[in-house]
Amino acid sequence: MPKPTTLPAWQALQDHYRELAQVPLRSLFADDPDRFSLFNLHQDDLLFDFSKNRITSRTVDLFAQLADECTLSEDIEAMFSGARINATEGRAVLHTALRNESDRPVVVDGADVMPDVRRVLDQMEDFSQKVRSGEWVGHTGEPITDVVNIGIGGSDLGPLMVVQALDHYADGPKAHFVSNVDPTQLSQTLRGLSPETTLFIIASKTFTTQETLANAKAARQWILDAFDSFEAVKNHFVALSTNRTQVVEFGIDPENMFAFWDWVGGRYSLWSAIGLSIALSIGMENFRALLGGAYAMDKHFRNAPFHQNLPVLMALLGVWYTNFFGAASYAVLPYDQYLARFPAFLQQLDMESNGKRVRLDGRQVGYETGPVVWGEPGTNGQHAFYQLLHQGTRLVPCDFLVPVQSLNPIGDQHEILVANALAQAEALMMGRNEAEALAELKGEGLSETETERLVPHKTFPGNRPSNSILYKRLTPAVLGQLIALYEHKVFVQGRIWQVNSFDQWGVELGKKLAKVILPELENDQPISSHDSSTTGLIQAVRQISEK
Amino acid sequence: MPKPTTLPAWQALQDHYRELAQVPLRSLFADDPDRFSLFNLHQDDLLFDFSKNRITSRTVDLFAQLADECTLSEDIEAMFSGARINATEGRAVLHTALRNESDRPVVVDGADVMPDVRRVLDQMEDFSQKVRSGEWVGHTGEPITDVVNIGIGGSDLGPLMVVQALDHYADGPKAHFVSNVDPTQLSQTLRGLSPETTLFIIASKTFTTQETLANAKAARQWILDAFDSFEAVKNHFVALSTNRTQVVEFGIDPENMFAFWDWVGGRYSLWSAIGLSIALSIGMENFRALLGGAYAMDKHFRNAPFHQNLPVLMALLGVWYTNFFGAASYAVLPYDQYLARFPAFLQQLDMESNGKRVRLDGRQVGYETGPVVWGEPGTNGQHAFYQLLHQGTRLVPCDFLVPVQSLNPIGDQHEILVANALAQAEALMMGRNEAEALAELKGEGLSETETERLVPHKTFPGNRPSNSILYKRLTPAVLGQLIALYEHKVFVQGRIWQVNSFDQWGVELGKKLAKVILPELENDQPISSHDSSTTGLIQAVRQISEK
Repeated sequence: MPKPTTLPAWQALQDHYRELAQVPLRSLFADDPDRFSLFNLHQDDLLFDFSKNRITSRTVDLFAQLADECTLSEDIEAMFSGARINATEGRAVLHTALRNESDRPVVVDGADVMPDVRRVLDQMEDFSQKVRSGEWVGHTGEPITDVVNIGIGGSDLGPLMVVQALDHYADGPKAHFVSNVDPTQLSQTLRGLSPETTLFIIASKTFTTQETLANAKAARQWILDAFDSFEAVKNHFVALSTNRTQVVEFGIDPENMFAFWDWVGGRYSLWSAIGLSIALSIGMENFRALLGGAYAMDKHFRNAPFHQNLPVLMALLGVWYTNFFGAASYAVLPYDQYLARFPAFLQQLDMESNGKRVRLDGRQVGYETGPVVWGEPGTNGQHAFYQLLHQGTRLVPCDFLVPVQSLNPIGDQHEILVANALAQAEALMMGRNEAEALAELKGEGLSETETERLVPHKTFPGNRPSNSILYKRLTPAVLGQLIALYEHKVFVQGRIWQVNSFDQWGVELGKKLAKVILPELENDQPISSHDSSTTGLIQAVRQISEK
Repeated sequence: MPKPTTLPAWQALQDHYRELAQVPLRSLFADDPDRFSLFNLHQDDLLFDFSKNRITSRTVDLFAQLADECTLSEDIEAMFSGARINATEGRAVLHTALRNESDRPVVVDGADVMPDVRRVLDQMEDFSQKVRSGEWVGHTGEPITDVVNIGIGGSDLGPLMVVQALDHYADGPKAHFVSNVDPTQLSQTLRGLSPETTLFIIASKTFTTQETLANAKAARQWILDAFDSFEAVKNHFVALSTNRTQVVEFGIDPENMFAFWDWVGGRYSLWSAIGLSIALSIGMENFRALLGGAYAMDKHFRNAPFHQNLPVLMALLGVWYTNFFGAASYAVLPYDQYLARFPAFLQQLDMESNGKRVRLDGRQVGYETGPVVWGEPGTNGQHAFYQLLHQGTRLVPCDFLVPVQSLNPIGDQHEILVANALAQAEALMMGRNEAEALAELKGEGLSETETERLVPHKTFPGNRPSNSILYKRLTPAVLGQLIALYEHKVFVQGRIWQVNSFDQWGVELGKKLAKVILPELENDQPISSHDSSTTGLIQAVRQISEK
């Protein structure tokens, strides 16, 4: 595969960029009153407006051409059909099979994985009904009121984000999430809970994740302290894992082990048994609606021509800003308090997938890859970091996520929220030139000197791009569509950049070094040969501990 | 003032950068076994290790020279002594007066502000004691169990972050925070509360902030629905504001209005009456310890030579990476679950202060200013976005915040946490070269082809800089030191970049446009002349609302 930067479409985009770089969005809108109709798409429950991007029809044509030259159609088919596209780990990538509602078999190593997928879904349904109905009881016969999911990374961020996002639909036990090895998180979580009515979900594919096992053992101790019976572990723990031996040794009934497969990556696992806390919170019917939303986006992604393909367009817009405009990050701005943790979820999805500097063939990329993702809900962010978005020196493309209706209407608060979302996207794009700033200041009765002095500070350069995604209200199906949209966007970018979006070798080295350092933190252990900083810090930890 | 880029020290740094750009940190450590002692500082309760930065002693000399050439000493004195350094708004910048424990007067317009500062602190002490002791009661005579702070931006992020961070010391009513105009946040917060035992703090300097007033009115309605007596408002609402007329009109007893001053910027206001929710949660003694910590850092910042000045060094390291190495963001990585919202707090502090493109004199900067700030607690981040930090194409300098001891020890979990923090900083700096990756793989019994294929993916470039800040444990005083450290760092960077770090004109335009759009969201209102995207989105909102 030739480097993407050498492809004809990339070269054409380079030329095209030089033409467009000096054209303000303002004038693109002024020149074409139909620009919005040209660059917005309805897909299932989403309205995707990408007209406030620094593009023309020619840009979109070149996006599609680049996707073609990168053999994207074949890559999409390869993913959906179970090819081992996670080449460095020799695995298929089949989170789409987890939400495949069709009769289509998905074959890995000659076997259809769908019966297994359906079996685990049924197991989740059966179990969640038992817990939610009160049929499942704790050691003392009490029904479960609280569920604590212990997992980290993909075993935490996905279910946590979804449970928070769909809190409106929650009618089961309250879900809590413990991920950090920092004992503060577990302590704070357990403080309000009763052992009699608490169920722990231990989510670790290998059942060896250091943080998760440490927290799981501490939670088990909390249960044993309460009941003084190892049998109680069976009533208060279930596992999401593939390591039966370790699960049984921990004290969990293997009946209550929920399996998944090596073709489910951690950051794509909320659709699998890792989503059990979701099913317990909102019920299996809502969980299936979430899967259904993702499946709708899967079909769209697989079938829509690139010009009308939401994930493909979003991906190429990201490439456009990353590799041509030099943007180093993008902001996700949900005007939806329920999506407060969506940016944190996307940080893993995007940065762990495409934060790579080596191509699939092992060569250095030689161009920028995955950006930093960040964001907070609007309108909060407006009072925090939007200053930089509007008047800073950096280009930060933004995604605005906007529900048209509130699930908790109070007065006109939701309308104020929506008005702010639309206004921010407008302000970023339009800016305010000197003449406008001057006109604005004229009404304020300042001296001429004062006015002149303030004008540059009240000027906004504008020309800052954004996508707006509207939906009626946040339902399980809408959330499924949104998540799958970003999943596929990240996939497409990975293919353009020719990195393996499905491995994460970058997490290994730190883990390994931590194992060396851990014993050295104790005063009587020899310190191995580190750099003087690491050695100095270890010694400081020892000294401060002593004090 | 000449542009910073034209100063001799900047020019010298440019030459120096060209020399250093090719020198790996690894070899700097190898060449000097004393590097750690050279580049770490103890200050009050903090150990600041900056040896894992791409610097030599010459770099630090040039940092100090640049600070001198930027007349930083005079600027520091100007801030502390109440000069109107917020020039575009004609205001002094005196958050340091709020924690001035000395007898030194701080004079603004010929009057010492300290008596006023002390008076409000005493008022806070008196009030918080009353509420905490149960002397203050709600409309039905019940003591207060829950406090809801309604504010946004600086009236939210600071107190929220501190209350979460100091949860270990919380022994007063439980503090909640509502900021977003999205009615979901208020609804979710009130769901678990009783009107009889809930006290609302309305935090808005002007008492006109749209989001805050909308939420305050909805909260008042909740109280009125419960008691059907306007008098109840007096028992359940207090105000942090300067607008007495509006406060009284709202129904709040002016006795329960806590004042602050125009020389307290929103993002520097947690030290003022805006911190009332903190005092209610942890008590005034702890609140004063927080102020004391900040005061200790203030003295250090004001008096220490630049070579040993933590905020100055941190600031110039940031300038070094921003303007010479081209870093676009930095990550704050607290290995301390209590500091989960510290990065969100810093987003406002830093990005609202220095996300500017116009110098104090009104000219365009012509160089990069404030970076994007982001981060999540370790070890969570390790399983999310660290992949990009280690193996991505972007340079992201990191700050590691590391408490040596846990406030909630469980087994060796805290030691695992600390080991991970130190190991990540080591891994980022050292990396793993091809020979090391090869040696690593040799033990795994792979074929030669397989090994060769994997080596590039298992290689880490290293040479990625970080600061490590160690403290024994998170106390109010330590937190005060940490916050003030970042405050002053941001101040120094603003002076180097010659922007006004204390205004925020960039938040105005969006607010103004939102007021235009709000009525247009209703179906029978005419839509004014927007771009076709904004018009299209308004029409879409109307149509979707109808469905």
